[in-house]
Amino acid sequence: MTTPSRRTVFFVSDRTGITAEMLGNSMLVQFEQFQFDRITIPFVDSTEKVEEVIRHINQVAERDGMRPIVFSSLVDENAAEHLREEAHALTLDVFQVFISPLEEELRKRSSHAAGRSHGIANSHEYFARMEAINFTQAHDDGAQTRDLPKAQVILVGVSRCGKTPTSLYLALQFGIRTANFPLTPDDFVERKLPESLRPVRDKLFGLTIQPERLREIREERRPGSRYASLENCRIEVREAESLMEAERIPFVDTTTKSIEEIATTVLHRTGLRRSVF
Amino acid sequence: MTTPSRRTVFFVSDRTGITAEMLGNSMLVQFEQFQFDRITIPFVDSTEKVEEVIRHINQVAERDGMRPIVFSSLVDENAAEHLREEAHALTLDVFQVFISPLEEELRKRSSHAAGRSHGIANSHEYFARMEAINFTQAHDDGAQTRDLPKAQVILVGVSRCGKTPTSLYLALQFGIRTANFPLTPDDFVERKLPESLRPVRDKLFGLTIQPERLREIREERRPGSRYASLENCRIEVREAESLMEAERIPFVDTTTKSIEEIATTVLHRTGLRRSVF
Repeated sequence: MTTPSRRTVFFVSDRTGITAEMLGNSMLVQFEQFQFDRITIPFVDSTEKVEEVIRHINQVAERDGMRPIVFSSLVDENAAEHLREEAHALTLDVFQVFISPLEEELRKRSSHAAGRSHGIANSHEYFARMEAINFTQAHDDGAQTRDLPKAQVILVGVSRCGKTPTSLYLALQFGIRTANFPLTPDDFVERKLPESLRPVRDKLFGLTIQPERLREIREERRPGSRYASLENCRIEVREAESLMEAERIPFVDTTTKSIEEIATTVLHRTGLRRSVF
Repeated sequence: MTTPSRRTVFFVSDRTGITAEMLGNSMLVQFEQFQFDRITIPFVDSTEKVEEVIRHINQVAERDGMRPIVFSSLVDENAAEHLREEAHALTLDVFQVFISPLEEELRKRSSHAAGRSHGIANSHEYFARMEAINFTQAHDDGAQTRDLPKAQVILVGVSRCGKTPTSLYLALQFGIRTANFPLTPDDFVERKLPESLRPVRDKLFGLTIQPERLREIREERRPGSRYASLENCRIEVREAESLMEAERIPFVDTTTKSIEEIATTVLHRTGLRRSVF
């Protein structure tokens, strides 16, 4: 029997379950006092698999002595209803709840076909996404400079301020061709942008970070190094910020932000259009 | 005035809007006959911003002669209600709809605090995610082999079958340390796994692809090359598959799958545990 402050949570989907997970987690974090044991079951796309999921949920309900919470995203109406009725759980049906009002509004029946999200049906969009990922990989950390004009945005900032994860996220989630380029002590001595960035100044977007946090991150990498020392972090951050201010490069503090939030801030402030996958 | 088969869709969120977009898009693709013009407004976290969004929606409603569809994800109850009441739109409130049944089930009020998702509060998880991203970047395309035993999964397959995007997605979305390693004509001559993969055989997972699709993808990269020719693609795919079969490496066909689906399949079949961000 589970204590009242623990609860098992299922994410059940006929496809990847990623949407159900993200929506579910955005709600579960609102209940801080609880500990949730999460189980994701993707590709539940047949009657047999629905039955299997129901058995699994009901076993957990019995084991826990408490009904689980189920975030369900099943496009098939009958499967969704069957799960709702047979699972001894609080079933929150993140797909079905909204599809009826949408059908009414659009005066059309939906196709009720599973597996349409993250589609690769549209070959043009697929290639654009792949190209963005390849471009971003090839232009990480200033590795290539020749094609910088083809970037949609170029992130700059000191080492370990979050450029690489943000670039990859922008490419993968939003299909944005993103380059990133470090600002290094060499640039600070000159108090100038690196040569190769000057022609693409209007694509630059800066990331900055609090020196204390930067120290923590660099310590993980190179413990005890001068590179990771608070003093050096302070100098680098101060110099980078004053360079960005002098060059009028917009920038954002990443200290308390997730990768998703940094990426969204970059899009929001540059006005770049997200692609949909 | 917009034609009946077009509709403007807003995604409104107090944070990134990514969850609202993903959920909304999974529903919109069910209405194939429509064309949706999408507008995402993130960081709607003050009364002024809510008012601004309402004005924006109502302007579009007037311009289109048709009410927009709004996927709203606002944690603040009053803000959400205000939007629902004042916006001339079909407002689908993806957060509020589920929070009440959850509160009832858990017998707790939620904290109703915005911005808890994708949290970086938990420093351990944050570093684990960063480490996964760094590891995966460093182990792309067989670039490094020394640390392969530290990988949680190692993707193998012919060039351009989807290894890099899948690896990056596994790291970013699920925090999985993923390496990837190409299977090349050299390996096929020997009919053996590359030397460095033999000690980590139990971590291998294969990707394969239909030769016709591979040809299309390679043509984008190197048009007219022997590398991209259908004949060569056929040989490479056949050889790679028989090598994987001989070595009993599980594999999945990526031809009609999105990055999200390939990544989920890898997790599902290897039993690797997703992290939550």
